[in-house]
Amino acid sequence: MNEPGILLTDLYQLTMMQGYFAEEMRETAVFEFFVRRLPPGRNFLIAAGLEQLLDYLAELRFTQPELEWLSGCGRFHPDFVESLAELRFTGDVHAMPEGTLFFPEEPILRVTAPLPEAQLIESRLINIMQFQTLIASKAARCVLAAPRKLLVDFGMRRAHGAEAGLLAARASFLAGFDGTATVAAGRQFEIPIFGTMAHSYIQAHDDESEAFVQFARANPDHVVLLLDTYDTEVAAHRIVSLSGILQDEGIAIGGVRLDSGDLAEHARRVRRILDDGGLSSTTIFASGNLDEYKLRELISVGAPIDGFGIGSRLDVSADVPYLDCAYKLEEYAGCPRRKRSEGKTTWPGRKQVYRIREAGKLHGDIVTVENDPQPGEPLLQLVMRQGRCLNRPAALSELRSRAAENLAALPEGLRTLECSSAYPVEISGALRDLARTLDQAGS
Amino acid sequence: MNEPGILLTDLYQLTMMQGYFAEEMRETAVFEFFVRRLPPGRNFLIAAGLEQLLDYLAELRFTQPELEWLSGCGRFHPDFVESLAELRFTGDVHAMPEGTLFFPEEPILRVTAPLPEAQLIESRLINIMQFQTLIASKAARCVLAAPRKLLVDFGMRRAHGAEAGLLAARASFLAGFDGTATVAAGRQFEIPIFGTMAHSYIQAHDDESEAFVQFARANPDHVVLLLDTYDTEVAAHRIVSLSGILQDEGIAIGGVRLDSGDLAEHARRVRRILDDGGLSSTTIFASGNLDEYKLRELISVGAPIDGFGIGSRLDVSADVPYLDCAYKLEEYAGCPRRKRSEGKTTWPGRKQVYRIREAGKLHGDIVTVENDPQPGEPLLQLVMRQGRCLNRPAALSELRSRAAENLAALPEGLRTLECSSAYPVEISGALRDLARTLDQAGS
Repeated sequence: MNEPGILLTDLYQLTMMQGYFAEEMRETAVFEFFVRRLPPGRNFLIAAGLEQLLDYLAELRFTQPELEWLSGCGRFHPDFVESLAELRFTGDVHAMPEGTLFFPEEPILRVTAPLPEAQLIESRLINIMQFQTLIASKAARCVLAAPRKLLVDFGMRRAHGAEAGLLAARASFLAGFDGTATVAAGRQFEIPIFGTMAHSYIQAHDDESEAFVQFARANPDHVVLLLDTYDTEVAAHRIVSLSGILQDEGIAIGGVRLDSGDLAEHARRVRRILDDGGLSSTTIFASGNLDEYKLRELISVGAPIDGFGIGSRLDVSADVPYLDCAYKLEEYAGCPRRKRSEGKTTWPGRKQVYRIREAGKLHGDIVTVENDPQPGEPLLQLVMRQGRCLNRPAALSELRSRAAENLAALPEGLRTLECSSAYPVEISGALRDLARTLDQAGS
Repeated sequence: MNEPGILLTDLYQLTMMQGYFAEEMRETAVFEFFVRRLPPGRNFLIAAGLEQLLDYLAELRFTQPELEWLSGCGRFHPDFVESLAELRFTGDVHAMPEGTLFFPEEPILRVTAPLPEAQLIESRLINIMQFQTLIASKAARCVLAAPRKLLVDFGMRRAHGAEAGLLAARASFLAGFDGTATVAAGRQFEIPIFGTMAHSYIQAHDDESEAFVQFARANPDHVVLLLDTYDTEVAAHRIVSLSGILQDEGIAIGGVRLDSGDLAEHARRVRRILDDGGLSSTTIFASGNLDEYKLRELISVGAPIDGFGIGSRLDVSADVPYLDCAYKLEEYAGCPRRKRSEGKTTWPGRKQVYRIREAGKLHGDIVTVENDPQPGEPLLQLVMRQGRCLNRPAALSELRSRAAENLAALPEGLRTLECSSAYPVEISGALRDLARTLDQAGS
């Protein structure tokens, strides 16, 4: 499939740009990206996706074939299309660093650019920022539910397309997962990759024991054997029987995987079989329809499982598959703007978010207008100036450390999987005054 | 971002292939892709994604940089990696044509290929086939809920990444949508594109009326004006006031869009304002958190809405964001295979699905072994032989016609949005006999 490129945008961005072109509206616009409200059950979100967004902005341009297609589609003036040939993103971007926890009403990204540029990028900007934020936030819940367990992203096959599969690996690793099964994510982002074996490998052999031995010999340093193709406990006994032969060849059975049935009960029985067979250092890995709720349940009943492969429900964020997020115009040509649609009112102007900590824990945030210093740390930082990134992308490991530090600083009440009382986000007096002034001025 | 390419696969496919390589297991394997059970509330699914899958298979190969990365990652023997350089997909594919309705337990795709090839493609095959099937099936429910309404995909921004945004447009159009807002989908798949205007356009102007006029002048053939930036009914009156000026310039106000609040109530009031103002041919288009349930509700209360933009909930299939689907080994080296994991038992062997119609309506399906002719039409057709497509891809319009014909033939009881009694899918005696024989032979 071709790269969808710059035309991966909504048609109305281009028709509006045609309007701006006719009106010569090229003054500076300020748009902010934020989440309106937390989804059910979520107590926080984790900002992610900035690196991919900055890549997109830095490379933004129309190719000649794209311009020709626009010329021929019957909707655009030739002079407007011609103007697009020169279009680049020349604006500034302020953003919370990836891995930062955030809450509703807080802009996590601000774009300051000539109106047509800031307008055009809306659709893909949301597309990029929402997805990784969604997955990082879901993954963080798994990390909270299963501390000190090995957590691996298994979900690429049921992610929504190629990019989703690849970036779900990035977002979940950023949020604290130990790695992914997706090889391309290992290559592109240097994320540790994990793999076991599939049922088809066992089925392709006439004999389960033979399959185990052959797999171990072919992959002697990474032996994780799948037990549930036919009968889990029978397979566990087979592994004990084979362990001596393999040991003589210098091969250790690193782990076994369970993928169906009552995972806690199977894990207990398999643990006993392995321990009785002298394989107490062989770990048990489980997969199959897992999510943070199932992890919590397995851990609460003391299931002797060392690691988990989390698939579909992570990569599609199954209980909350999208965020109520928006990218809204907050200022144009120096004047703050405010949308007042029912249930979708926005706070106007350029904003900053300050975060106050007490005894190391997140204590409360203040959203205010820019240049209205408040106690605490300002979270939005300038990351792109006039279309150029100010820094090289941070290493993924650094973003992952930030997420871990943020999660460690999360107040106790917000660490549960259920919805708790909201984290305090204060709207400053200055911001309320600005909104009131705008409302009084009318539209 | 780089194309993830052939490494967009799970690590275990490669470790298993390393086992097959060491064992010289290259006999013919047969895998089938199917959905185990219908998601809650779904009465049928629509097969989609085949064209993209065949593209993937036809282009399957390891690039030199990918091979070098595999060599360096510390998991693979040099001779195994070397063997990958020559790998191409050389197998056969049988499939239901896109747009075909199908039901659980029915294979919609069969791959017959040397074991390593058939194994390697599993992860991306599921990734491609699941997503479009999921979205086409969701979109078809919108079509059933809102017959004769204009339905447009608005969801790219909240789709999970670029590919999902692009292919959601394809899948929903295939299922009966009228078009999409996603420009790249218009270009790549020749899907009709639709667009209105965003709140930011209105907000960027000091005056709402001025924004309406300028937009109309810049896009005189496609004037759809957004009413709810400040006050919906005030905006409707403004449009009536402006219509004379625009008419004098030869510009008709084609439509208005509502995007918040009580859509039915706003639509009624706006309809009256437009009609009273002589704009009875100006249509009303609605958007904002819509899905098939909301469409049904709006239509049942007689809301005077002519068309709908369906966004996030369509593009992520919000109530059912993934399918319980699988790609399973059913035969190797001429011997049928069967997985017997708890709750995940499969039917063995190469299968065919026959569909019986009565009076034009779908009457029942029979799943049987290949070469066991049954009444009705066989649904799985050979589409790729030895790695080559037998036909050029069908036009999307043809696939869309098939989906429409299939939906029209859906029995009345299955046309509701709620779960109804299951469509009859019979497992043939021959298939049951084969499964029994395998079970008796043991693993």
